[in-house]
Amino acid sequence: MSTRCWINGDEQVNIAVADRGLQYGDGLFETLAAFEGKCPWFTVHFQRLAAGCERLAIPTPDKQVLLREVEQAAEGQHKTVIKILLTSGRGGRGYRRPVVLEPNRIVMRHDWPEYPDAYWRDGVVLKLCDTRLGCNPALAGIKHLNRLEQVVARNEWHGSEYAEGLMCDMQGHVIEGTMSNVFVVRGNTLATPNLTACGVDGVMRRWVMQTAEELNMEVQQTALSVSDIKQADEVLLTNSLIGLWPVKIFESSNYQPGPVYQALLKYLVKEYPLINIQINAPINTWFNA
Amino acid sequence: MSTRCWINGDEQVNIAVADRGLQYGDGLFETLAAFEGKCPWFTVHFQRLAAGCERLAIPTPDKQVLLREVEQAAEGQHKTVIKILLTSGRGGRGYRRPVVLEPNRIVMRHDWPEYPDAYWRDGVVLKLCDTRLGCNPALAGIKHLNRLEQVVARNEWHGSEYAEGLMCDMQGHVIEGTMSNVFVVRGNTLATPNLTACGVDGVMRRWVMQTAEELNMEVQQTALSVSDIKQADEVLLTNSLIGLWPVKIFESSNYQPGPVYQALLKYLVKEYPLINIQINAPINTWFNA
Repeated sequence: MSTRCWINGDEQVNIAVADRGLQYGDGLFETLAAFEGKCPWFTVHFQRLAAGCERLAIPTPDKQVLLREVEQAAEGQHKTVIKILLTSGRGGRGYRRPVVLEPNRIVMRHDWPEYPDAYWRDGVVLKLCDTRLGCNPALAGIKHLNRLEQVVARNEWHGSEYAEGLMCDMQGHVIEGTMSNVFVVRGNTLATPNLTACGVDGVMRRWVMQTAEELNMEVQQTALSVSDIKQADEVLLTNSLIGLWPVKIFESSNYQPGPVYQALLKYLVKEYPLINIQINAPINTWFNA
Repeated sequence: MSTRCWINGDEQVNIAVADRGLQYGDGLFETLAAFEGKCPWFTVHFQRLAAGCERLAIPTPDKQVLLREVEQAAEGQHKTVIKILLTSGRGGRGYRRPVVLEPNRIVMRHDWPEYPDAYWRDGVVLKLCDTRLGCNPALAGIKHLNRLEQVVARNEWHGSEYAEGLMCDMQGHVIEGTMSNVFVVRGNTLATPNLTACGVDGVMRRWVMQTAEELNMEVQQTALSVSDIKQADEVLLTNSLIGLWPVKIFESSNYQPGPVYQALLKYLVKEYPLINIQINAPINTWFNA
């Protein structure tokens, strides 16, 4: 299977150089997991896309049209990755947009990324990136096409010694991984950075917060430092493709896949059949008692 | 005359959707003025492009190859705009770059933007934008493809009541216009925001600083507030296409095109034949005595 691509419903691999997505990163994207031709969380992805459209003043695509295109792209695949790009469309030279925008919907199908089972079973090694995230509330939370900070951060390592890199803002607050959100377990509390000034409000991040609340955990969106990560009982990474990864090593700290991870994973695999790891560890759901 | 476009020397209007310039804004650009087929400041633009390549770890294109492509694009035109885009090239899904990058050089030719002569003669009205610039030293100064902040700021007004919008960083420091750099004259001093944390280090900004020093003015790169702009004797906007514009109105402040503007313009038109305004005002070059 190779990558395939549709623009506004038609299969094609090229786009106009004049598209403002290329010229300025004037657009948004979503990365969805698809299983047996369906995207379990399409609606949540669409909600974030629509929120991004509102923020950037780009007309929101029709939900049913986009869903049809996404399912067409995923058709016949056991598991696959669907990437949606929505750009503000063609424009002339200069930042000023055309009076009437004609956004381009791009739907791409990619191979499923295969990571070692050990990432879910034992945890991953997390790097602390030097590259920082700039703060800008106007662009925070949404998944826009200006991703140079992530590109530069991801370019800080090349081998397989790290599975992910953790990024801080300019003030040293921990914000997120290059491709994931981060959670820490401290006693009875699950905490994740608040994303009002920078970062991407991930679909799996929302699922984790909601599920943890349903499991009667206290969930905080708060400021977190590198020390908070080092001193946590558990550290989790989340995104739509990996679901959940426990961290096993970050800087000088070591962690075990803990009870919160195991409980969340137990719930995740019920509605998200993409993770085929066996949960052999005993599940100590103190918060589920 | 319409827009034309060459990719790696071949005339074409489309590019692969898989290009990382579209996917992440992973690339750089330059906007050059060309007159009778030549770009007077190609070398300065190339220096900034090369500095951006080094910062983003993208292989720098060959200067002579790029110059030939730029001059081919400008050939036969009295005055025209050349835009260079350099992307990190095709990639797979994900922020991680391919091991070997094959950058794409895109050279576009655009119509010259015609602004009213009054912009140079009487000055322009400058808006204070609500949209802020995020700070990130890793990306500051270079002209990369992540330009959503400028796009959103430029979308704050639609008519011709303003010629340009002024942007501050999150701390309220004035940084630059959406498409220009800004200078203020205060007594004997020409000051412009320092761009170590955000902003684009413009080619015309460099020319103004160098020329003002040759004219024995004191030139400062410093922190400037909105009040500093309001209280300045003169406010100037610069970019490679407009050269220099004096500001006539900003918020509640009014300004006249002053002696520093007039002296700089006098020098600019000598080496930059794109501004055809007659300088009729008496030139009071106190700093040139």
